[in-house]
Amino acid sequence: MGLSERIDKAVTDAVAIGQGGVAPRQLSTALSYATTPGGARIRPTILTSVAMACGDDQPEITDAAAAALELIHCASLVHDDLPCFDDAEFRRGKPSVHRAYSEPLAVLTGDSLIVLAFEVLARVAHLDPMRSAQLVLTLARQTGMPGGICAGQGWESEPAVDLGAYHRSKTGALFVAATQMGAIAAGQDAEDWEELGARIGEAFQVADDLRDALYDSETLGKPAGQDDLHGRPNAVAQLGVEGAIKRLTDILSGAIASIPSCPGEAALAHMVRMQAERLTPVVSPAAKQA
Amino acid sequence: MGLSERIDKAVTDAVAIGQGGVAPRQLSTALSYATTPGGARIRPTILTSVAMACGDDQPEITDAAAAALELIHCASLVHDDLPCFDDAEFRRGKPSVHRAYSEPLAVLTGDSLIVLAFEVLARVAHLDPMRSAQLVLTLARQTGMPGGICAGQGWESEPAVDLGAYHRSKTGALFVAATQMGAIAAGQDAEDWEELGARIGEAFQVADDLRDALYDSETLGKPAGQDDLHGRPNAVAQLGVEGAIKRLTDILSGAIASIPSCPGEAALAHMVRMQAERLTPVVSPAAKQA
Repeated sequence: MGLSERIDKAVTDAVAIGQGGVAPRQLSTALSYATTPGGARIRPTILTSVAMACGDDQPEITDAAAAALELIHCASLVHDDLPCFDDAEFRRGKPSVHRAYSEPLAVLTGDSLIVLAFEVLARVAHLDPMRSAQLVLTLARQTGMPGGICAGQGWESEPAVDLGAYHRSKTGALFVAATQMGAIAAGQDAEDWEELGARIGEAFQVADDLRDALYDSETLGKPAGQDDLHGRPNAVAQLGVEGAIKRLTDILSGAIASIPSCPGEAALAHMVRMQAERLTPVVSPAAKQA
Repeated sequence: MGLSERIDKAVTDAVAIGQGGVAPRQLSTALSYATTPGGARIRPTILTSVAMACGDDQPEITDAAAAALELIHCASLVHDDLPCFDDAEFRRGKPSVHRAYSEPLAVLTGDSLIVLAFEVLARVAHLDPMRSAQLVLTLARQTGMPGGICAGQGWESEPAVDLGAYHRSKTGALFVAATQMGAIAAGQDAEDWEELGARIGEAFQVADDLRDALYDSETLGKPAGQDDLHGRPNAVAQLGVEGAIKRLTDILSGAIASIPSCPGEAALAHMVRMQAERLTPVVSPAAKQA
């Protein structure tokens, strides 16, 4: 089984836990709708790659961690798309959850996915209770308040924004969760892996800014120009297109340099390089002048 | 320190975790706003009473469990009050979170409280990792899909409702969580404690139906007549006022009879009787004819 099949199976198995037995049908199908199609599954891919680089001695724990992280990411997309936030009509090329179902069901889908993420982690406690608890703690910190993605979204309601804290929590948090949870799942110390996650998060933010500025809604599969529209800070506005692309390359070199010494170091560096290529937008000469 | 001070302190300490360091100010204050004033704190009171009846050998774990359960309950109130659900103007005698802050901040407050609940449980894993994991698992099951309060709310979007599953998940789930988590926190088997929680949940549902039918908005501190308005099933509509009061008394007798043998059995029975008195509405002769 390849890496992407492994991750898709982990996510599908996790979602099935939330759909077992007697359950309200629409909310049940919305859990699948919100978590498919998988797209790049970039966060669980990083998580599983780190775990494999560290030996992956408990693959069932790794799979639970990967699924839990992806569920949180999907939950955040469902809630971010709500009318009171981005009011997004489309996500991943299909109607957003509140458009396809309803606003109440979108709120509940996000809530249920958040809860399911922690359930999935608790279910592997019999294999190693301390790893399970550390995974719950790490995921919670990078998801909630004061430093997780909820905080990141919360900064957008503030009149004065701490830009460092905003980017760290809004985009960086789940990448830090990815590298740290990968290490924890394989029985390693999480601290050593924070920098790699933070740098991948920065790179992702710059790449997202580039895509938001350069691509149209159809290519993105979601509304374009949202940063301009909502007055959100953006690396392209700050550095221009070429400057932002140079920043992206520099950050990724730093990310690779930060990988802690581990059995699968070379393979992990290769994975980060591949994600980097995927992240970097194809820029036309005309756009570079923009 | 009395029981209610102990629980208030546990909740306040838990909320403070979500407010530490650099955090967006409004979302940070909304976490306190949504969790105070405490009101009856009935779920954590039951949880702590069960733990004490079982010996309460790890009070720090009991406090974490009580706080986590209350955070989930408060999160559910914030999300249930949203315009797309009950559109409630008031809660506990003050404006609901989306009225006092904004709709985005209300969504994020609920999300953050859910996540914080699981963080609080993971933070006591060093004392006993298996108890911590079992608490996470039990709370997640009674909160999410397919059998928790999210499922309960999800049933309200279905054209055909499984009434048993609806009441079990909508109201019963967090009372089952209360008794089971109390037992787990004190190192006891959760299964034996399910029936007590389920029966208290049924009693609470009938009591809530009575209050919804008999009291005005000012007394309730939230909109009255919501069941009629939303066409939700209600014990008073089914049995009349006197029938519903008799049902309430019967259920509570069954609850007390179901208490497993434990060192603090008598004190726990006393607590359930006290909660019962608090639950039973004062009914005027005129209302009895309604």
